[in-house]
Amino acid sequence: MAADHALLAAVTLLSALHQGYLARRVGKSRMKHNIMPPAITGHPEFERVFRAHQNCVEFYPIFLVMLWMSSHFFNEVLAAVLGLFYLFARQMYFNGYSTSVKNRLPGFYLSLALIFALAVTGGAGILNGILDEYFDINLRKKMFKS
Amino acid sequence: MAADHALLAAVTLLSALHQGYLARRVGKSRMKHNIMPPAITGHPEFERVFRAHQNCVEFYPIFLVMLWMSSHFFNEVLAAVLGLFYLFARQMYFNGYSTSVKNRLPGFYLSLALIFALAVTGGAGILNGILDEYFDINLRKKMFKS
Amino acid sequence: MAADHALLAAVTLLSALHQGYLARRVGKSRMKHNIMPPAITGHPEFERVFRAHQNCVEFYPIFLVMLWMSSHFFNEVLAAVLGLFYLFARQMYFNGYSTSVKNRLPGFYLSLALIFALAVTGGAGILNGILDEYFDINLRKKMFKS
Repeated sequence: MAADHALLAAVTLLSALHQGYLARRVGKSRMKHNIMPPAITGHPEFERVFRAHQNCVEFYPIFLVMLWMSSHFFNEVLAAVLGLFYLFARQMYFNGYSTSVKNRLPGFYLSLALIFALAVTGGAGILNGILDEYFDINLRKKMFKS
Repeated sequence: MAADHALLAAVTLLSALHQGYLARRVGKSRMKHNIMPPAITGHPEFERVFRAHQNCVEFYPIFLVMLWMSSHFFNEVLAAVLGLFYLFARQMYFNGYSTSVKNRLPGFYLSLALIFALAVTGGAGILNGILDEYFDINLRKKMFKS
Repeated sequence: MAADHALLAAVTLLSALHQGYLARRVGKSRMKHNIMPPAITGHPEFERVFRAHQNCVEFYPIFLVMLWMSSHFFNEVLAAVLGLFYLFARQMYFNGYSTSVKNRLPGFYLSLALIFALAVTGGAGILNGILDEYFDINLRKKMFKS
């Protein structure tokens, strides 16, 4: 119905599909190493893939919150771009972790930096919103004289 | 305050209560087999129940995203109905998995089909929204001549 | 952009930062006990900290849903206050669990009570919304004669 925030929605939908894709990669790793559920151990590669996925699961709601806050209170296009880079960083993390424990780090640090960028932009926008709503101070307007 | 989207909100609240109920089932299985936290192994049935819950936890944010996107960009009533069936499918999966590893499959496949339906309807609505917002093309209006 | 719901947004952002902080505590516990990923066992304290974090992860989407529903359909300030207490309860739970299995309980029960309060207020607001939207009955107006 609504056409608003379609860009943010597209990145959000893509991120959910990406989470589904990572879950499928765990299933494939199960089959490759013949590890039947509910076992979550049995082969070092599977254990790395499993933990990589778990970490992505743990961070996914944090990512969604930061993405939406940054989009709503700062800028939708910037948040969408940062969000796309986050999905790329998470894929890099997942692929790295599946090869070795050490190789998880570049993608992980990149994903943290992107979450940090979303948090800072979102936080700045929310602070402006609170000052505007409860104290009638609009920093954004003052800064950009608009 | 707002009365909008009350149907979507009701299904969302129900889904959160359902997640809480599944968490409680894990606790009950702990007590039944006398497995004290933080242990997550000790009896095959408990291990199946534990993994069933974990899988529901992993998919829950994916489900929420698909549900909301389908509701906002396609149709609230359809999304709410698909969402209710998803909760049913997850319960079927959980109950099945608690009896045997194989019995998890019918509910799991049904839950995937419902997520797929939410993703396709949501994705179609978002695509229409992007074409409308950024390219001034409204496919929905053209298709339904309204 | 928007200044609406800045208070709810601030609590939501804070909760996501809190989740990130708890994830970091798990990493610190790994280092303290020299447990390299992807291992999730090796020392009782680490195992308690790990499970404490997992439980917070499992409940986080449930909390977000309840927080937003209560805020949108009941009262934003009340939901924000309950949400802040929830973060406090989760910290209490995490700290307690990291010292002993038994000490997890006070924080856990408090967090459940707060989720319950958010669910009841949110549920009441949604019920009022559904009655208003689909049956043209507005209980809130009748009760408060406004």
